[in-house]
Amino acid sequence: MPSHVIDMIMLQNNFGTAEMRQVWADENRLQKHLDVEAALALAEAELGLVPAEAAETIAAKAKVELMNIQEIARDVLKVKHSLMPTLKALQKLCGPEHGEWVHYGATTQDIVDTGMMLQLQEAHRIIVRDLRTVARELAKLAREHRATPMAGRSHGMQGLPTTFGFKVAVLLDEVVRHLERLHEAEPRVFAGVLGGGVGTYASFGPLGPEVERRTMERLGLQAPNICWHSSRDRSAEYAGVLGMISGTLGKLGNEFYNLMRTEIDEVEEPFSSGKIGSSTMPHKRNPAALEGLASLTKPIRYNVALVQEAMIVEHERDAMSWRGEWIALPESCIYLASQLASAKAILAGLVVKPDHMLRNLNLLGGLLLSERVMFVLAKPMGKQTAHEVVYELCMKSVEDGVPFREALMADARIREAIGEEELENLMDPATYLGSAPEIVDRVLAAAEAAGWLREEEAE
Amino acid sequence: MPSHVIDMIMLQNNFGTAEMRQVWADENRLQKHLDVEAALALAEAELGLVPAEAAETIAAKAKVELMNIQEIARDVLKVKHSLMPTLKALQKLCGPEHGEWVHYGATTQDIVDTGMMLQLQEAHRIIVRDLRTVARELAKLAREHRATPMAGRSHGMQGLPTTFGFKVAVLLDEVVRHLERLHEAEPRVFAGVLGGGVGTYASFGPLGPEVERRTMERLGLQAPNICWHSSRDRSAEYAGVLGMISGTLGKLGNEFYNLMRTEIDEVEEPFSSGKIGSSTMPHKRNPAALEGLASLTKPIRYNVALVQEAMIVEHERDAMSWRGEWIALPESCIYLASQLASAKAILAGLVVKPDHMLRNLNLLGGLLLSERVMFVLAKPMGKQTAHEVVYELCMKSVEDGVPFREALMADARIREAIGEEELENLMDPATYLGSAPEIVDRVLAAAEAAGWLREEEAE
Amino acid sequence: MPSHVIDMIMLQNNFGTAEMRQVWADENRLQKHLDVEAALALAEAELGLVPAEAAETIAAKAKVELMNIQEIARDVLKVKHSLMPTLKALQKLCGPEHGEWVHYGATTQDIVDTGMMLQLQEAHRIIVRDLRTVARELAKLAREHRATPMAGRSHGMQGLPTTFGFKVAVLLDEVVRHLERLHEAEPRVFAGVLGGGVGTYASFGPLGPEVERRTMERLGLQAPNICWHSSRDRSAEYAGVLGMISGTLGKLGNEFYNLMRTEIDEVEEPFSSGKIGSSTMPHKRNPAALEGLASLTKPIRYNVALVQEAMIVEHERDAMSWRGEWIALPESCIYLASQLASAKAILAGLVVKPDHMLRNLNLLGGLLLSERVMFVLAKPMGKQTAHEVVYELCMKSVEDGVPFREALMADARIREAIGEEELENLMDPATYLGSAPEIVDRVLAAAEAAGWLREEEAE
Amino acid sequence: MPSHVIDMIMLQNNFGTAEMRQVWADENRLQKHLDVEAALALAEAELGLVPAEAAETIAAKAKVELMNIQEIARDVLKVKHSLMPTLKALQKLCGPEHGEWVHYGATTQDIVDTGMMLQLQEAHRIIVRDLRTVARELAKLAREHRATPMAGRSHGMQGLPTTFGFKVAVLLDEVVRHLERLHEAEPRVFAGVLGGGVGTYASFGPLGPEVERRTMERLGLQAPNICWHSSRDRSAEYAGVLGMISGTLGKLGNEFYNLMRTEIDEVEEPFSSGKIGSSTMPHKRNPAALEGLASLTKPIRYNVALVQEAMIVEHERDAMSWRGEWIALPESCIYLASQLASAKAILAGLVVKPDHMLRNLNLLGGLLLSERVMFVLAKPMGKQTAHEVVYELCMKSVEDGVPFREALMADARIREAIGEEELENLMDPATYLGSAPEIVDRVLAAAEAAGWLREEEAE
Repeated sequence: MPSHVIDMIMLQNNFGTAEMRQVWADENRLQKHLDVEAALALAEAELGLVPAEAAETIAAKAKVELMNIQEIARDVLKVKHSLMPTLKALQKLCGPEHGEWVHYGATTQDIVDTGMMLQLQEAHRIIVRDLRTVARELAKLAREHRATPMAGRSHGMQGLPTTFGFKVAVLLDEVVRHLERLHEAEPRVFAGVLGGGVGTYASFGPLGPEVERRTMERLGLQAPNICWHSSRDRSAEYAGVLGMISGTLGKLGNEFYNLMRTEIDEVEEPFSSGKIGSSTMPHKRNPAALEGLASLTKPIRYNVALVQEAMIVEHERDAMSWRGEWIALPESCIYLASQLASAKAILAGLVVKPDHMLRNLNLLGGLLLSERVMFVLAKPMGKQTAHEVVYELCMKSVEDGVPFREALMADARIREAIGEEELENLMDPATYLGSAPEIVDRVLAAAEAAGWLREEEAE
Repeated sequence: MPSHVIDMIMLQNNFGTAEMRQVWADENRLQKHLDVEAALALAEAELGLVPAEAAETIAAKAKVELMNIQEIARDVLKVKHSLMPTLKALQKLCGPEHGEWVHYGATTQDIVDTGMMLQLQEAHRIIVRDLRTVARELAKLAREHRATPMAGRSHGMQGLPTTFGFKVAVLLDEVVRHLERLHEAEPRVFAGVLGGGVGTYASFGPLGPEVERRTMERLGLQAPNICWHSSRDRSAEYAGVLGMISGTLGKLGNEFYNLMRTEIDEVEEPFSSGKIGSSTMPHKRNPAALEGLASLTKPIRYNVALVQEAMIVEHERDAMSWRGEWIALPESCIYLASQLASAKAILAGLVVKPDHMLRNLNLLGGLLLSERVMFVLAKPMGKQTAHEVVYELCMKSVEDGVPFREALMADARIREAIGEEELENLMDPATYLGSAPEIVDRVLAAAEAAGWLREEEAE
Repeated sequence: MPSHVIDMIMLQNNFGTAEMRQVWADENRLQKHLDVEAALALAEAELGLVPAEAAETIAAKAKVELMNIQEIARDVLKVKHSLMPTLKALQKLCGPEHGEWVHYGATTQDIVDTGMMLQLQEAHRIIVRDLRTVARELAKLAREHRATPMAGRSHGMQGLPTTFGFKVAVLLDEVVRHLERLHEAEPRVFAGVLGGGVGTYASFGPLGPEVERRTMERLGLQAPNICWHSSRDRSAEYAGVLGMISGTLGKLGNEFYNLMRTEIDEVEEPFSSGKIGSSTMPHKRNPAALEGLASLTKPIRYNVALVQEAMIVEHERDAMSWRGEWIALPESCIYLASQLASAKAILAGLVVKPDHMLRNLNLLGGLLLSERVMFVLAKPMGKQTAHEVVYELCMKSVEDGVPFREALMADARIREAIGEEELENLMDPATYLGSAPEIVDRVLAAAEAAGWLREEEAE
Repeated sequence: MPSHVIDMIMLQNNFGTAEMRQVWADENRLQKHLDVEAALALAEAELGLVPAEAAETIAAKAKVELMNIQEIARDVLKVKHSLMPTLKALQKLCGPEHGEWVHYGATTQDIVDTGMMLQLQEAHRIIVRDLRTVARELAKLAREHRATPMAGRSHGMQGLPTTFGFKVAVLLDEVVRHLERLHEAEPRVFAGVLGGGVGTYASFGPLGPEVERRTMERLGLQAPNICWHSSRDRSAEYAGVLGMISGTLGKLGNEFYNLMRTEIDEVEEPFSSGKIGSSTMPHKRNPAALEGLASLTKPIRYNVALVQEAMIVEHERDAMSWRGEWIALPESCIYLASQLASAKAILAGLVVKPDHMLRNLNLLGGLLLSERVMFVLAKPMGKQTAHEVVYELCMKSVEDGVPFREALMADARIREAIGEEELENLMDPATYLGSAPEIVDRVLAAAEAAGWLREEEAE
């Protein structure tokens, strides 16, 4: 039975999704190797390096369902080489004549690196698709709550009123930037490679660069300027973007986890009847999904560094650096897929509690609006003096437990400057939202204009 | 099919061992949960909290082979709770009367944390066993080559002669310190926990601490002073020691990888006929095992930080921190098991090439002994002056390509101070080994005295 | 002006303490190098390797106040060697005759590594002293609040009652384990080294090991079994312990930050009049010290990995690995010193609000005691049935906003099993603290017995 | 005296450059804060929020040279607020009337974040400038050595011939991708912020967004769609790119360090007379600059993760996250500046040794060309058979120490297929360079076309 949380029967669905696991599973990895061999043979046949019939046979036989993975795995141990047994198996399927032309001129790293890029590109499509859905869910919430007042908090303490939509729009704007990053990375990251032993194409003769170009075209990958066996910034860049996306999702999870605290209770993650919070405390309704969302950012973050470390390759190639990629790229994609799926579900079913938001806004008896009072007083008193007067009354209100309203009204300087009715109006948090709703609109318009909120067509 | 290198059919044996995978596999994890439930029920029965018959039934039925893991996994998804389905299944096996007493007074985290510690302790036994074998192999090599001269190198450049045994003894001394660290950690790290919902034992009534003590005694774990649901320094300490052990093994891998370079060629990792180095370069005999050894240190290193990060738990418990442990502890143990197995095999079959070591020692035509010449000259000239004279002649030798011997003999000041025959003796690296052999003996004696080189009895 | 937060005039006191900065400052580093040179010369004189008079002169002149650091720094750039200019300066101070004997037989790394250990040992004394003070403050709070009821929380949600003292005792037990770790590390970590060019003592002749032993004795350091220029597990171990201590302090900071939230308000960090929370919101009283405490754990955590990475040294020495130590050891000590100082001040002045704790305990109208009700019902109904009945009523209470008490009393099954008065008693959280106060006593007793709570004598 | 390597008198120039330190030094940080206050006041005056005269006074007085940093630092400790003392000092300089209008409507975070972005943008200009110089140096070396044959190595072992220019071109292509990344990041990263207490502009009234737009225009920064106090992906992105650039430079350092090994000796870093390699081994010429270059990648790499961790901000702002940025952004910029300066100097003065490259190419007596022989034999024998025959002869050559040429000629099958003269030609590595020179040209042309190799005009 499996031993890693990504594969364990009891845990895998808390750490990944079936769809993304499939991208990185043994059979898809092997199929991608075979796809590269097929494309290579066909490209070489076009250029006369390999007999056309051999190439067609190779392409026809390069199917994972014709192979015995267990047997190949056993041979890998025997010959201590990760690709040779696959090549042997393919060769055997192609027969003695055509089989000789399998893997003609390529080196192992060519196949393995290009195959990894094909997998990464598949993962990328899932990530973009799901991140766009997350963006749409955020847009929906932002629009709906563009003017729903709640306490803005800094340092964990209530500061000034804001709106729930504003908070969500901050997240949306961040997600939009990630979508741009993913988009910009595409032409740079998704390149294959086919350089031979040390990248010079020596084994292909002078046609090497053209073999590479045509093979990559068949595979839907970029052809690089130069062999990148020893140049791993592409994976590093992609892992870095995954880390940032995960950072945003982790922040979202942590934020709503905090807003769901017993004592705050402004949102609640979707609750399904039958869900159990505790084996001993029957009343518990835990932010389990939010905690999961928040926590998977951590391993993805360390993977960013692990993949950057893999950039330090020695000479034309070594086998010390890419182990980091083999570990970290699937992990990061799988953990992130889980976060994206979870974020979609949470956002779609989020219970928002405007009444509780309002209750909390009034918790401090108006203290939250100290800034507003200060700015009104700034006109008659000067801003600096106003800050001092209001600061003094705030501290008094906190220390003595006197409601802020009363503390203000008890002060002659204030009474002189502000009438009782005016003060009452000033104490209404719902009218001190600044430009929050308009800014939400601005963020939504920008996201819309960039096209990220459109439903994708079936591609 | 699996998606993580630890479980992938084609890759798992390059990233772990079957024995260590088994420790962390689904069924062993589940069995450990059941072991805790059984020990708990029996302890509670002793104290009269649970009917004796019920406890015996629970203990008899708490066997993974009686459970359907797939079914439990499906229910976990349904109720969104990781332990309840296991409890339900155990309850059902025990029948309506006795089943009611399953998990009496415990909380999920009690079972899961204590179970994890049982797994970690199993892993620990394997690690200690294999690290002691590595120590013995190092001791053997150090003893054998205590006086085998080779170039000592600093900054990648030849510096002074040393011995191969000395190099190995540095590693051995490091390994001995790790064995001490593992030993000292045992009574601190391997503790279970059984504190109930928030750790106060409230659900056990006043007998709580005694229930915990007896349960842990049955399980072979320490009972803690206080509940550690929110106190994760134990895992952090252990992960840190794993990181350091892996650091030593990674250094060993990197060191021998460098000594095996085509141009140095002083050692070679064991080669088995039929092993293939390259799919396109037939002559290649790669340091594949050494590279594997060197590379697995990296993910283990990041895991040290990931588990330390898991120390930041909120309140009496959260579900954000321990995901880091669930990911990192199995990973680190499994990668390290692979490194240990690999180090054992490499050391046992290492080809050491004293002739090549000697050849390299003479590569610089004596430059390597510049220090020795300087100290001889220090007596007549003063050390500072001697350093300047010798420095000047060294640079000349390098710049002009004149062998150091000749450069020395061409200098009147040297000729005056040292005779030609004496110089010839001074130029023999094999007689400038300092105390290297004696220091090797000292390291061996210390390791021996501490008992780490003894074969363990069957425990 | 300085550019790193550790030295910046405006920021340094938020990131360190003057005392710890002094340990790692230029002049102390240089003085330690000179201390090693002095001890070496005196040891060599005892053994007849160096004239006694020369050694005495060297020891007399090896004072940082006799040196011009700026000038030495300029020469370092010129000769591109970090120690030679110091040696030249010392030599010059000693005069032509005695100066020749400076640094006799040693290599740069000997001096630099041994000097670093002397600094680390100074830092260690500060850390142990301050961590013991933190332990005493925690003990005081735990004792005082051993039975002060508050809500225990898991997953950010109220779970069961606990006591504030219990929460603090969990931290204290963790700190006690760190004190043990620091203590156990001492004889292993604080070793100097004096092995010469490649560690074989060749330049000292056969007396090398004895020179090293005597030098280390003079310096108050251990003499190692074998040269550790290429063996850096000592620093790695120490950095790891610093990381764990910082993890505990960071958890403490984060915990109290959360308990200080506007909506929870159970503790408050010491407030000094005149402290300003915000430049625009006059009412703000921020958990600024707690945030500082919580945040400095992060860079220390990455340093754990950075120093473990420094274990991968090539050959007998390289200059790529120890840069990590030079960066990370001072940083971690300085950040941690700041955390320790801050923790001491926060704990000594912490405002604990038992009334607010009680208010929050009653926030859920008794839901917090669902477990207790369940265990009472378990007797007549069976535990499993009781869990189901109580779960159902809890969910009803939450969904419909009916207070838990009422929901219970409205249910015939409950009324039958529990009388109204009994229910009222069951609903009192202050009587459901389990063994919390006794466990606090146990933790205090253990800490006391181990001696960690004693005031240190002036050492 | 300073305590961090970045500021220490004896070490700072090994860890940074004076120019980059200046960007992050106390006085520049303070000046940037003042610049933001000045731009804010002027923008507000344009919009009638602040009297024009007051704004002009503020702008005129917002000069670091008019301030007393030491005094401000003392006040920071007193009021425990990092910006208020600066504001007070500016206010005082502006006099009672105009001073009241300082910082009108802004919050501390606005000033500090925008100031940090101004510093980061200055750092960015230095980094782009120096990375372009590195690109030009690489281009020069690649062009010069496009066809200089040397051993291509994989797994530390010689594999096939390549050219030195090819190796350099791989690095150049990587650097060009980094220049693209820096360029693409500019409009996204370099944004200021001016949102007030919780980002809603409430304190500015309805003109808030326009105040922000005009302030940023004056400062040469982007205006964001929405407040990013709690949205830190910009710093994370930039730190990530710094990490990748540093990865490339670290690889370069490590690569040339290895090529400079005594036993390989194909390049040498620039040596200045008087440079000392060792205090005890006079002959040493160490790759000190290369080691420095290689080693500074590590701390920068951990900083990538530290800054990504800072993305997890709570609510509208907290003070736990940005400490990571304050530590890591200056560190990464300063370490990288040192790496860039060092890389420039190393590349400009690199000693390339084509004769040694050729010597090493011939070290294996032709084994390096086993692939070439195999492909020639593939025609008559079939590729698979040829691989087996050649593999067998290679292993024989290695095991028995028979030169490859002789082993080949001793085999009847080979003699039959290849004549002796043809074999001699096949054994010439300089004629088996594949498309290496042409690929170098392709990389150079692409870099040229993208404009990165042009000398920048004074901007």
